[in-house]
Amino acid sequence: MRIYLDCIPCFVRQSLDAARHATKDHHIHEQVVREVLRLANDLDMSQSPPAIGQQIHRLVRGLVGVEDLYHEVKSKFNDISLKLYSKMRQYITESEAPLATAVRLAIAGNIIDFGVNGTLRESDLEKTISECLAADFPDTQLKPFQQAINEADEILYIADNAGEIVFDRLLIEQLPIEKINVVVKGQPVINDATMEDAVLAGLPQIVEVIDNGSDAPGTILESCSQSFRRRFEKADLIIAKGQGNYETLSDVRKNIFFILKVKCPVIARDIGCEVGRMIFQKTKAFKGEIENATV
Amino acid sequence: MRIYLDCIPCFVRQSLDAARHATKDHHIHEQVVREVLRLANDLDMSQSPPAIGQQIHRLVRGLVGVEDLYHEVKSKFNDISLKLYSKMRQYITESEAPLATAVRLAIAGNIIDFGVNGTLRESDLEKTISECLAADFPDTQLKPFQQAINEADEILYIADNAGEIVFDRLLIEQLPIEKINVVVKGQPVINDATMEDAVLAGLPQIVEVIDNGSDAPGTILESCSQSFRRRFEKADLIIAKGQGNYETLSDVRKNIFFILKVKCPVIARDIGCEVGRMIFQKTKAFKGEIENATV
Repeated sequence: MRIYLDCIPCFVRQSLDAARHATKDHHIHEQVVREVLRLANDLDMSQSPPAIGQQIHRLVRGLVGVEDLYHEVKSKFNDISLKLYSKMRQYITESEAPLATAVRLAIAGNIIDFGVNGTLRESDLEKTISECLAADFPDTQLKPFQQAINEADEILYIADNAGEIVFDRLLIEQLPIEKINVVVKGQPVINDATMEDAVLAGLPQIVEVIDNGSDAPGTILESCSQSFRRRFEKADLIIAKGQGNYETLSDVRKNIFFILKVKCPVIARDIGCEVGRMIFQKTKAFKGEIENATV
Repeated sequence: MRIYLDCIPCFVRQSLDAARHATKDHHIHEQVVREVLRLANDLDMSQSPPAIGQQIHRLVRGLVGVEDLYHEVKSKFNDISLKLYSKMRQYITESEAPLATAVRLAIAGNIIDFGVNGTLRESDLEKTISECLAADFPDTQLKPFQQAINEADEILYIADNAGEIVFDRLLIEQLPIEKINVVVKGQPVINDATMEDAVLAGLPQIVEVIDNGSDAPGTILESCSQSFRRRFEKADLIIAKGQGNYETLSDVRKNIFFILKVKCPVIARDIGCEVGRMIFQKTKAFKGEIENATV
């Protein structure tokens, strides 16, 4: 998915949020905004939003002089999510449709996105969990999802954010874990999950976790390590969490299921839905490939 | 009130909204965003937000080649508001506290602000009216307001937006109309009310209406005509509607009552309240002057 003009003010806001997370120095905040404006002015509009996000967050980290701007927030939401884990697990085990409930919760966890909302509170997360458990849900995808899981030999579960990764664990526990590799970011960017967060979520105890070698807030294949790219190519099913992975993988011809909560109007427009919607859907790009292949 | 860094992404979004209101040409949209980024990069942060807004909307009008970008939206919300007029008048006449109800409605009308929300619909306005009629209301200001009205000889009622000006008429009808002059903008900017809108609202039939000679989305005295500035100086009471007038007049030492709905986090922070709050309050700048004078 390419950048929309609406992404530009959002990048400026995001960079200011990021700078404020790291320092109270107003001069640095102003410097960050001015530099991001300069960068935005020379923007190559054919890139995906996370490609710009990657450049902007590198710039902010450089100006602020802090490598992991959201470390505190990530710890906080890992803790909050771990505190909720048992209760959420109970929702799943007591549910009549455990897999569907686990997908709902994985979508709820996707609200922990500090690229979109820099002021998220614990109460917002709890509210989102209740809403996602009660909301209308596109469960027509459940059968194809289960079939794809059964047929696949190697599944990559590309995680999105810290805290959210605890919700991902709940879904992963409903899947054949022996087939699954979880992917986190290679370096900190916004509140995206890195290996540290996967470890805190207890994931390496149940599945293999790898990092993608990249600091983009999505999955930009050219920015990832060769070893990740090989894994990506070999995998016969990808589960991609969150907006950043949707933005970077929606045009990639692989067998991908996207799981996310739509939090911005640009992605809502691209998907063709309202902001706030729960998305659990198979990629259209891969479907196109199959149709071509059978002609 | 000075510009905050948070205003900058908002200006970029606002300029894109404005360009989209006037043309579907994506190249012009992109050109507008790039020029506004350039302008924002050289920003003098000691100015008020409407001073920047004035520059940006001049730039957008120049690039798009349209003088009144929001003409259609202004007509639409004048029509909608006029359709609601009788019903709202009934709310006031049947109310136990007609003046308070009229102030509530004047605040509700302030939701018609395309600088803040470029996608406002009729249903949003109706919802806001219901909310404002039911909400907690700072009516401790009602008595000082009524007293100030009684004591004043010349009152300037500085209007804000088209459509909203019909709601202003409802409040003005509760005041001693012989003392009141209504002020509109000298030239179109966003959906701010000009003389055309005042005429559509039927205001010149009940009060004198003047324009301020300016195209700033607020009241920047240096940008206004000399004749307006004389009126402003002479008036012993100012009623200032909306965010733009708050931003430009909150530091001016005149006897001012601000009436607005808080729609942005920057103004909420400046006032010290939550976004969404109804504001009906006497200026703090003037109070300071009196205190000094009586020492």
